[in-house]
Amino acid sequence: MAISSSFFACSLQGSMAAPKTLNCYKELLCNRSNLFFKQSGCIESMYQSHSRLLPHSVLSKWEQTDQFDRIQCHSLEVETAPSFSIGKKFQLDDVIEAQQFNRDILGAIFEVANDMEKIENNYPGSQILKGYLMATLFYEPSTRTRLSFESAMKRLGGEVLTTENAREFSSAAKGETLEDTIRTVEGYSDIIVMRHFESGAARRAAAIAGIPIINAGDGPGQHPTQALLDVYTIEREVGKLDGIKVALVGDLANGRTVRSLAYLLAKYQDVRIYFVAPDVVKMKGVEWEESSDLMEVASECDVVYQTRIQKERFGERLDLYEEARGKYIVDQAVLDVMQKHAVVMHPLPRLDEITVEVDRDPRAAYFRQAKNGLYIRMALLKLLLLGW
Amino acid sequence: MAISSSFFACSLQGSMAAPKTLNCYKELLCNRSNLFFKQSGCIESMYQSHSRLLPHSVLSKWEQTDQFDRIQCHSLEVETAPSFSIGKKFQLDDVIEAQQFNRDILGAIFEVANDMEKIENNYPGSQILKGYLMATLFYEPSTRTRLSFESAMKRLGGEVLTTENAREFSSAAKGETLEDTIRTVEGYSDIIVMRHFESGAARRAAAIAGIPIINAGDGPGQHPTQALLDVYTIEREVGKLDGIKVALVGDLANGRTVRSLAYLLAKYQDVRIYFVAPDVVKMKGVEWEESSDLMEVASECDVVYQTRIQKERFGERLDLYEEARGKYIVDQAVLDVMQKHAVVMHPLPRLDEITVEVDRDPRAAYFRQAKNGLYIRMALLKLLLLGW
Amino acid sequence: MAISSSFFACSLQGSMAAPKTLNCYKELLCNRSNLFFKQSGCIESMYQSHSRLLPHSVLSKWEQTDQFDRIQCHSLEVETAPSFSIGKKFQLDDVIEAQQFNRDILGAIFEVANDMEKIENNYPGSQILKGYLMATLFYEPSTRTRLSFESAMKRLGGEVLTTENAREFSSAAKGETLEDTIRTVEGYSDIIVMRHFESGAARRAAAIAGIPIINAGDGPGQHPTQALLDVYTIEREVGKLDGIKVALVGDLANGRTVRSLAYLLAKYQDVRIYFVAPDVVKMKGVEWEESSDLMEVASECDVVYQTRIQKERFGERLDLYEEARGKYIVDQAVLDVMQKHAVVMHPLPRLDEITVEVDRDPRAAYFRQAKNGLYIRMALLKLLLLGW
Repeated sequence: MAISSSFFACSLQGSMAAPKTLNCYKELLCNRSNLFFKQSGCIESMYQSHSRLLPHSVLSKWEQTDQFDRIQCHSLEVETAPSFSIGKKFQLDDVIEAQQFNRDILGAIFEVANDMEKIENNYPGSQILKGYLMATLFYEPSTRTRLSFESAMKRLGGEVLTTENAREFSSAAKGETLEDTIRTVEGYSDIIVMRHFESGAARRAAAIAGIPIINAGDGPGQHPTQALLDVYTIEREVGKLDGIKVALVGDLANGRTVRSLAYLLAKYQDVRIYFVAPDVVKMKGVEWEESSDLMEVASECDVVYQTRIQKERFGERLDLYEEARGKYIVDQAVLDVMQKHAVVMHPLPRLDEITVEVDRDPRAAYFRQAKNGLYIRMALLKLLLLGW
Repeated sequence: MAISSSFFACSLQGSMAAPKTLNCYKELLCNRSNLFFKQSGCIESMYQSHSRLLPHSVLSKWEQTDQFDRIQCHSLEVETAPSFSIGKKFQLDDVIEAQQFNRDILGAIFEVANDMEKIENNYPGSQILKGYLMATLFYEPSTRTRLSFESAMKRLGGEVLTTENAREFSSAAKGETLEDTIRTVEGYSDIIVMRHFESGAARRAAAIAGIPIINAGDGPGQHPTQALLDVYTIEREVGKLDGIKVALVGDLANGRTVRSLAYLLAKYQDVRIYFVAPDVVKMKGVEWEESSDLMEVASECDVVYQTRIQKERFGERLDLYEEARGKYIVDQAVLDVMQKHAVVMHPLPRLDEITVEVDRDPRAAYFRQAKNGLYIRMALLKLLLLGW
Repeated sequence: MAISSSFFACSLQGSMAAPKTLNCYKELLCNRSNLFFKQSGCIESMYQSHSRLLPHSVLSKWEQTDQFDRIQCHSLEVETAPSFSIGKKFQLDDVIEAQQFNRDILGAIFEVANDMEKIENNYPGSQILKGYLMATLFYEPSTRTRLSFESAMKRLGGEVLTTENAREFSSAAKGETLEDTIRTVEGYSDIIVMRHFESGAARRAAAIAGIPIINAGDGPGQHPTQALLDVYTIEREVGKLDGIKVALVGDLANGRTVRSLAYLLAKYQDVRIYFVAPDVVKMKGVEWEESSDLMEVASECDVVYQTRIQKERFGERLDLYEEARGKYIVDQAVLDVMQKHAVVMHPLPRLDEITVEVDRDPRAAYFRQAKNGLYIRMALLKLLLLGW
């Protein structure tokens, strides 16, 4: 098995009239049959943009196959998203998935996040959430995400109940359902931030809970606050969201981060997304020149969004992992071709997919991005507990 | 080995003159010799009620045999309980075991708990414990209990130091005594909430500590705050404690919860307790009709207190566990025979011993019961730190 | 292999002119060749005292060999310590190692710690750190140290983000560098208290962080706040630091605690330190009479500083551990020879190297010592966040 690579650019054309169904846009660059896509594990994408004033947005879901390097678009579901009427404030009850946001809600959240940035910089900070209790109910540990939420709550004067071993609640031995756990914990707190190992768990929790639920990641499902902070960072760093070019690099197949980000970007006008990913295939005669690809993309984009190749998904094929891992490195050479205003982003943690030398460059935005997670989470806590 | 079942009703007759020794009351229903009791693993009980004005209550202890389905009453010890003099407020120094409470103290605590309910419902809550620090010293994890205590402390404006790996303090490798740990932690906090794997650990801690200790469960020993919240819930739900009928269902042999609850109920007048438990015995010719038993009891009682069959106690005999587990299920059929004012309680977590359909019924009191744990713990923290 | 024992007294002569290089002072008592020292695993020491007004202190480092019972002094490095100019306040940016303190800084910190003692005793305590967030980033659990820091922060009105599983940040699977973790966590907090398994980790963190770092122990390296609280305790208990006699007893070879303490004591005038340690050697004809040694030392010293023999360092030679462990016990007999004003100290946890009977004696200072850790940490948090 050899490693080749591919990248696809998906043109996202905003239109006032949203299509009822979605098609997979494949750039001519790809130039392959659909069959080939299925065999080669290419990353495909489908988007649409939502009209600003559409009361009911058409939302899509991606279906992911079991294989580690395929995301395919089929059997798209059409749902009704929370609507926004001018002159009426949003009602934000829970934060469950990226699909619940449209660009108006995003814009409103980003304004609050911007206010939070000022609050956090001023001593002694805000006490607007004084008397409120947030429970962090983590069924799997994620210290980074947990600390970010807990910091957000405390920066606003709120208090926190922490558990990183929430599995104990529902251990095989004891066998309590998630629903029972939520009904108990909601008696102790005012809002629950929840991380779970099963896709859909946050939605189940929100269905039963009388208090707001924030999804801090549910297995291979959603991690909506990451997607929000990513989009917020792009707006802050690039200065706009319409008309931008974004390269998504790395382990795209597994990336709930990448999927949710792409989904939200699709809400904006004329966003162009480039996927640059190692392509582990058993095909002869197909060789992609990788480095030039990343270089070419990097030189054109406003954002190079690098991600970590997730070793755990390769099982015993560590040889493939090692090959994939070294494919696309953001280093000084990449910086050299990038535009002056462009930025490098990464959801962190990183391994060596961005070299340490890049850290010194002002275009290295990933630590600012992590910090923006604090502001977004402060904003969400404020909005869910106090309203707009 | 087959599973049969049995239930016993123990009549608790209040009397002004407390007996110096206690006898096991066996209802005629049982109709068996004492020998049979010992062989069959029946659940027996012994009670007395304490006169309201008795300065020294006579307290009893149960002895539990090694076998998993027997609780027998013998070698009762007589102790001196904290006295209550009219016109003088109680001095509550520690919360170690159910035996330390009489009905006057219970009544006083319940009044404070009721106040706490109002505090918790009002934004922004109370700050009466501002500046106080509670250490949760858990030698074994119990997220539910811990969160309840920590929420209670924070709802009153207090602060919390958390540890769920307190065993590290006294690990085999390091070998620190509990006494040394307490002497260290009391230097960092104003009150210690402690869960331990050994019976008697809380009492040892209280003996050495200069600050209040609350026992949040010590192994097979006591879990007094659970007993308090159970009795508080009954009073809130049924409206009285004297003259009530309570069915205790499920894993009674192992139940420190059930033992402590029964002990406290015995403080009230004319309380009648029914034990309904699967009975794992090797006896021929003795067959109890289970479902009709639970039905009969449920139709008469004010409270049906269901408990979880604890799998871990069955060792390799999972067949027995499976049989015991299915014996007594509280479901719609049970609800149908229950009186309108009666309630279903459960210490949680539950498995399937109460079916989900019951949740919808207003008589399902178990989540309200869990919430009452918050009020009881707020009350105890207030009383121990600030006094009456 | 037999166990013998030895003790050495090192005379610390203060001088205004600090020597550029240091020599190992060996008391005549030792009466052995240097070769013997290397073979027998004796504990050697080297000290100097620093002149009060020396702007640049000469600092020394100890090198520890791989063997468990040797500390040898060679290849001493000379560094420049933070200077203190009269009329100018210290700038305390981080707390990384004992070497960064001189007696003027120590004196100033101890004054603040003394103030903290008053704050902690008064209800409702201070709110001077209200609005500040401390992150406890523990790569290995140390509940005792963590609780002490968290209590210190909360006693001053500050808030805490806790993690005891910080290794997850940098797990082999994810592979994040310490530097990246610090850059993320500093976005969420105002100060980081860090415990790490690698020597030098705190220094690396401080080099990258924009907020203060406190080293709460980095592997076999430093644990500077322990050393500070030890010296503070001696001053509080004995009333002075110049001219005192201190016996360091027990597992000196492994003792970063002991090394750091000895280092700080060397800042004072005419301090005399006695090492009393089990000596596991394979030598014939050399027999040291232990009990009389400890007795003799104990009768002369102001402080008997006992430490725990660390079992884990003996590997499979548990026989040696058992022998070493029983060598020097501080018990009533030792108390009987100690002077009236002298005290027994211990960094805790203790096993049986101090018998429980000693606890009752007013000269047992170890629990007061633990409490002093709170005041020292309160002082450091105040100084690092608010300045002098």
